[in-house]
Amino acid sequence: MSDKVYIVGAGPGTAELLTLKAASLLRTANVVLHDDLVPQEILDLIGSSAEVINVGKRCGRHGASQLQINALMVEYARDYAVVVRLKSGDPGIFGRLGEELDALREAGIAYEVVPGVTAATAAAAAAGFTLTDRRAASALVILTAHNCRGESLSQVLLDPEQSTYAIYMPGPDYAATARELLRLGLHESLPCALVSAAGREQQQVKFLPLSGLQTTNGVPAPAVLVVGKVVGRNHLAESPYLLEEIYESVRNTPQNPAY
Amino acid sequence: MSDKVYIVGAGPGTAELLTLKAASLLRTANVVLHDDLVPQEILDLIGSSAEVINVGKRCGRHGASQLQINALMVEYARDYAVVVRLKSGDPGIFGRLGEELDALREAGIAYEVVPGVTAATAAAAAAGFTLTDRRAASALVILTAHNCRGESLSQVLLDPEQSTYAIYMPGPDYAATARELLRLGLHESLPCALVSAAGREQQQVKFLPLSGLQTTNGVPAPAVLVVGKVVGRNHLAESPYLLEEIYESVRNTPQNPAY
Repeated sequence: MSDKVYIVGAGPGTAELLTLKAASLLRTANVVLHDDLVPQEILDLIGSSAEVINVGKRCGRHGASQLQINALMVEYARDYAVVVRLKSGDPGIFGRLGEELDALREAGIAYEVVPGVTAATAAAAAAGFTLTDRRAASALVILTAHNCRGESLSQVLLDPEQSTYAIYMPGPDYAATARELLRLGLHESLPCALVSAAGREQQQVKFLPLSGLQTTNGVPAPAVLVVGKVVGRNHLAESPYLLEEIYESVRNTPQNPAY
Repeated sequence: MSDKVYIVGAGPGTAELLTLKAASLLRTANVVLHDDLVPQEILDLIGSSAEVINVGKRCGRHGASQLQINALMVEYARDYAVVVRLKSGDPGIFGRLGEELDALREAGIAYEVVPGVTAATAAAAAAGFTLTDRRAASALVILTAHNCRGESLSQVLLDPEQSTYAIYMPGPDYAATARELLRLGLHESLPCALVSAAGREQQQVKFLPLSGLQTTNGVPAPAVLVVGKVVGRNHLAESPYLLEEIYESVRNTPQNPAY
């Protein structure tokens, strides 16, 4: 494993639902900083020489600890080669990953995100049903009870300031997909990431504004289109909306797009 | 592994993002029926004595093959102990899992769904950003380019006939969560699954209508609440909406809730 901070999804909480990569990183890590929710059966996979820190406990109360976690990650990354930040589920869904990535980027520390099985898919599998079904549901909306409160669901779901849209099978007619998203009210300046063969050797990531999607050549299938402010904020921190001329070029990001 | 059909998520397409359970099932399966999209590096993990069938190719053209796939699955399950149906990504998101589960249930064949890393989370990890971020997005909407067409996004997303809602961290005040979902326009008869510790030994699944959520004791954290017609259709095929008195009881579903 290369020297960097690996932000790793621990999945829903059973060792057998870890990815092979997560298990391998736990065996080889010098340091593991983990959430309180990660169960012992997963922590048992960590190599015996590694330093293991429960940042949930060490950093005190819920809600007060994110800055401390960020600081610890940066501090350990300076002293150790392979630092694993182990987060429940998938790190990119409700896990404050954005803040941790910002801290690493600001400190100039290389990182890689390792996705995990997220709670919604684990729950549906456990209960024996499917989340989408062309006969009963063609979209999946993931939110927290917290964001049900105070605002209407339509305010949250249809506001790109508050939602991210992941479009599966976005091609081959990207122009049609772009036209539909614009017609639905999404702004043409919204940042998009078009990701082909995620995690594979031939992976490609193309960053562009929604307006650029109308004229893009696209990327090879299998691909996913992600639209929303989250796409922009990690790549151009000062300006959440991207300039087409900067980003309309295929960027190969073998593992770590930022470094 | 017990005798049954395992419907297994292959993840985004790189072997290292398979779950440990998926890798173990591929090694021990007697038969593997796989999608066309699953790459060779994953198929290479299958034990040498297994029969391997590409149902994408064998069954002919896209869109014409689901009945044939269902029939093959049932046929092999009758002759072999461990049958793996290997599907790209997570099997419960845009994978026609519902139809395959229906076929297995109708044939009286035991099954288990093994979740995988879904494309949206793999794409975001690959591109180095987060899907939700309390500073930029508090909900994630997963859809296909196909369902962008012809209807408005609000029609799709706010219509429980067309969307499934997965609510993370739904407790401990389930009554408040229920009130908010009702206020947002979801119908009180909509079926819900409240899943605690998905995939773990202490897993609990509670089925109830949205109206019942107001008075339920809930389940231990970590939990996910899934609301939508997909929840009902696999458990009471004749009537998509459930009766509270039938389902308001904690059901332990160690692996296979249907058998």
